[in-house]
Amino acid sequence: MIDKDKQLVFGHRNPDTDAIDSAIAYSYLMNKLGYNTEAVAQGHPNEETSWVLKYFNHKAPRVITHAYPEVKKVMLVDHNEPQQTIPDIKKVTVTHVVDHHRIANFDTLAPIYYTARPWGCTSTILTVMFHHHNVEIPKQLAGLMMSAIISDTLLLKSPTTTKYDVKAIKELSKICGVDYKTYGIKELKAGTNVAGKSAKHLIDNDAKSYVMNGKHVRIDQINVVDLDDVMKRESEVKKAMEDESKAKGYDLFLVMVTNVLDTNSTLIATGDVSVMDTAFGKPLGADGSVNLPGVVSRKKQVVPPLNKAFDK
Amino acid sequence: MIDKDKQLVFGHRNPDTDAIDSAIAYSYLMNKLGYNTEAVAQGHPNEETSWVLKYFNHKAPRVITHAYPEVKKVMLVDHNEPQQTIPDIKKVTVTHVVDHHRIANFDTLAPIYYTARPWGCTSTILTVMFHHHNVEIPKQLAGLMMSAIISDTLLLKSPTTTKYDVKAIKELSKICGVDYKTYGIKELKAGTNVAGKSAKHLIDNDAKSYVMNGKHVRIDQINVVDLDDVMKRESEVKKAMEDESKAKGYDLFLVMVTNVLDTNSTLIATGDVSVMDTAFGKPLGADGSVNLPGVVSRKKQVVPPLNKAFDK
Repeated sequence: MIDKDKQLVFGHRNPDTDAIDSAIAYSYLMNKLGYNTEAVAQGHPNEETSWVLKYFNHKAPRVITHAYPEVKKVMLVDHNEPQQTIPDIKKVTVTHVVDHHRIANFDTLAPIYYTARPWGCTSTILTVMFHHHNVEIPKQLAGLMMSAIISDTLLLKSPTTTKYDVKAIKELSKICGVDYKTYGIKELKAGTNVAGKSAKHLIDNDAKSYVMNGKHVRIDQINVVDLDDVMKRESEVKKAMEDESKAKGYDLFLVMVTNVLDTNSTLIATGDVSVMDTAFGKPLGADGSVNLPGVVSRKKQVVPPLNKAFDK
Repeated sequence: MIDKDKQLVFGHRNPDTDAIDSAIAYSYLMNKLGYNTEAVAQGHPNEETSWVLKYFNHKAPRVITHAYPEVKKVMLVDHNEPQQTIPDIKKVTVTHVVDHHRIANFDTLAPIYYTARPWGCTSTILTVMFHHHNVEIPKQLAGLMMSAIISDTLLLKSPTTTKYDVKAIKELSKICGVDYKTYGIKELKAGTNVAGKSAKHLIDNDAKSYVMNGKHVRIDQINVVDLDDVMKRESEVKKAMEDESKAKGYDLFLVMVTNVLDTNSTLIATGDVSVMDTAFGKPLGADGSVNLPGVVSRKKQVVPPLNKAFDK
């Protein structure tokens, strides 16, 4: 008894490659299983994702800002928290979630399909789901899913990487016929061009909002191949963070500048920075930034310690 | 990299057959996958479950009231809401959940394994998970899991029943070599003996707590083969409900008296009953009860309409 009403499938706001490619992949799988879905996105692809979509010759999903009244039911990929989803989420029913993030402030009235795994990438979970449902992964889709894993795990170098991601990336690489290692470096570099971009764009492009013990926390991540590409513009970036916090009411704004090649980050912080020391065991420098060698994962290395520090 | 620290696996408070048998089954599966777990329970088996455990010659799980400091990590089956779990849940980390209920007030700091399906029984989800992991279901375990599906779906007659439950029950019946139909009637009857029990025991035995729009709602279900077995004691039952609400601060207390043979229920309500009319489209009788033909599922036919009514 599969519901034939059309449903939208989408990832989080400020979509990254996994948010977009997982929506495409999950929609494909659900349609094969008899559902009637369309993959959409809460924003245009970023530069990395655009590069990926072009490489595998797939068009970008339609951008939506609301789900209702177009549909009554939706499926979420790569997110669950209310502040990362469509503003009118309360007007529709979430029937399915596939995600690899913590679960927070996600409440349903009725039982639903919820498949979360603490793995590096939603597309890795989807790879396993295709197998469980005996649905073949087409070549083009395998390329997109492989690209999502490269993006989320920084080519398997992030500490979020699990053996499931390694297995999936190799399998998808084989299906799409593209060597993930050489392709992966090119993909990651495609998302690191910061030179021509305004500070306002940089601090918002991959930013996510969190509620931590009642505080509104905004965390953005900027991938680079040289930390100095952003750090030489630090005062300009901090100004943009302060303006944005004022406008949107963030209590704390963090920008992670991450070197995707040597996997370390510098955090720039503005707002209620009193928790930073407790969270990361290292004081902020006079300029309001701190270098954290080995830190590349917002989800695993930044959000949990911040949460703990706020809860103290 | 499986964590070898011992973990406890358990179902909800006031355990029913699925809460206990799913914990046993999931613990078995996890141990086969390399984890180190023990199935425990938040209470002693009820009469139906005791009958089932005796039939399949399995001892009742150890009863726990706290998880910490015995373990640092736990796995939940058949529930997720804080008021249905151990009181010290905040002191431990939930690493896995397998459930078929709505998700509410369940927050984690880090990503976890969460497998929810809107099916009739947690043991049905587990049956599929055994297959995905290529783990054989032993005969005795198949009997327990089959019994859980019989209990939760009232022998496939509840509207919560899905094609997955039908498939699983048939398969488990084949493995354990027990005809689920004749066995199922006996199992359901084993849980309907209300004659020798105090009203206080009856209203608490299968009761669950919910928070709906800030209100504390308690819903109990009593299975019978004749509604009159309980309804002839209605004033005594209502008195016990009122006493309990006063002692525990419930805003609304509902007791579903369910005829397991002809699948219909009478609801007895005390407390803030103003929402009842809106929720069930039928006024309460002068005695504070209402008969709802076809209603047998707390989760699907009672909780969602009540939630909606409270949200209005």
